[in-house]
Amino acid sequence: MKIIELKETITASNDRDAEVLRDRLKRSKTLLINLMSSPGAGKTTLLERTIKDVKDGLKIGVIEADVDSDVDAVRLAELGITAVQAHTDGMCHMDAGMTETALTELGFEDHDLIFLENVGNLICPAEFDTGSGRNVMILSVPEGDDKPLKYPLMFTKSHVLLITKIDTMQVFDFDIGKCVSRARKLNPDIRVFPVSAKTGEGMDAWEEWLLDEIRAWQE
Amino acid sequence: MKIIELKETITASNDRDAEVLRDRLKRSKTLLINLMSSPGAGKTTLLERTIKDVKDGLKIGVIEADVDSDVDAVRLAELGITAVQAHTDGMCHMDAGMTETALTELGFEDHDLIFLENVGNLICPAEFDTGSGRNVMILSVPEGDDKPLKYPLMFTKSHVLLITKIDTMQVFDFDIGKCVSRARKLNPDIRVFPVSAKTGEGMDAWEEWLLDEIRAWQE
Repeated sequence: MKIIELKETITASNDRDAEVLRDRLKRSKTLLINLMSSPGAGKTTLLERTIKDVKDGLKIGVIEADVDSDVDAVRLAELGITAVQAHTDGMCHMDAGMTETALTELGFEDHDLIFLENVGNLICPAEFDTGSGRNVMILSVPEGDDKPLKYPLMFTKSHVLLITKIDTMQVFDFDIGKCVSRARKLNPDIRVFPVSAKTGEGMDAWEEWLLDEIRAWQE
Repeated sequence: MKIIELKETITASNDRDAEVLRDRLKRSKTLLINLMSSPGAGKTTLLERTIKDVKDGLKIGVIEADVDSDVDAVRLAELGITAVQAHTDGMCHMDAGMTETALTELGFEDHDLIFLENVGNLICPAEFDTGSGRNVMILSVPEGDDKPLKYPLMFTKSHVLLITKIDTMQVFDFDIGKCVSRARKLNPDIRVFPVSAKTGEGMDAWEEWLLDEIRAWQE
């Protein structure tokens, strides 16, 4: 079996834009969480539950980045938070410029917490700094415990790994120990929270982390 | 709730390269199947079972396109077929030029059937014609029946929709009727095969389609 390497040059000037945006967010005491995952990993369901649990006393917003449709933003706006749907015109990720445009539409300055639900994709979003304060990735149990081997950059760039749909663990051959040790090999500092937005299992620890991060960001 | 449109220009000259490659494949009577899906939808498991079932009397090859790792190619090479692992250096898709490079490494001319296991991603691979004879997409039950709403181009560009992991249907709230009608709205001609590579359910119909397509391609 042969292995061949195919190359592409990737442009960058995005990093500087992202730093400038992060500074603005820091000044307005707005924590931007960049939420990344495969399609169907349960980002929106997790967000729904999380927002319901933590929203008291916080001004929360959501940017839904999607190639098309507005089903997720409509669902989340029903929670009484601010929401913007950002169509990426076929693009597979959000960059800092796109994020800034969406944040401006949202009127971010008076928000404590904004979730950027990035495009469903384990590759491209990892390559572009959005200006977020923290990167959170979701891996759902049905996707398999081998994903750190196949999408290493996503695990390297994330501060938190949420392992979702843990209520389906008995149906799938998912070894959580293997998954976590593969993730930690790439990123020793990654925080891991196994959760089920359906049963509520594990949500406390994740939400506690989130509230701590908001406090730290606003200090 | 606001909807904003973010734009990017996408270059193209890939379409002509793809046509040229498709002509070469037609002349060598090699059917190239471009297999696309999210990460963790079960592409490799499905391929394993399919290849075992249909390989008698056929020369089969596999191109495994991945950002990193070679776990899938090693698994498939154990079936006694030819296999090439193509690392895309972070790129989220295969284009016609990359596919041609991989096919040349494989020595495609004496093959009847080659599967290109495209990068796990529902967005980018749909945008690039690889030169394949047929595009097959996989949607796994855990991903949800709303995916045609969110990734329309993938459904538009695919000749076949394989709905995989149907053995987990009772665990997930997946409405197959809704999923299929959403897919057909985008692409009235799409062939749909619900399958489970684990239990074998539905594999016959899919494999019959595959063998018919090989015969038609070689006429």
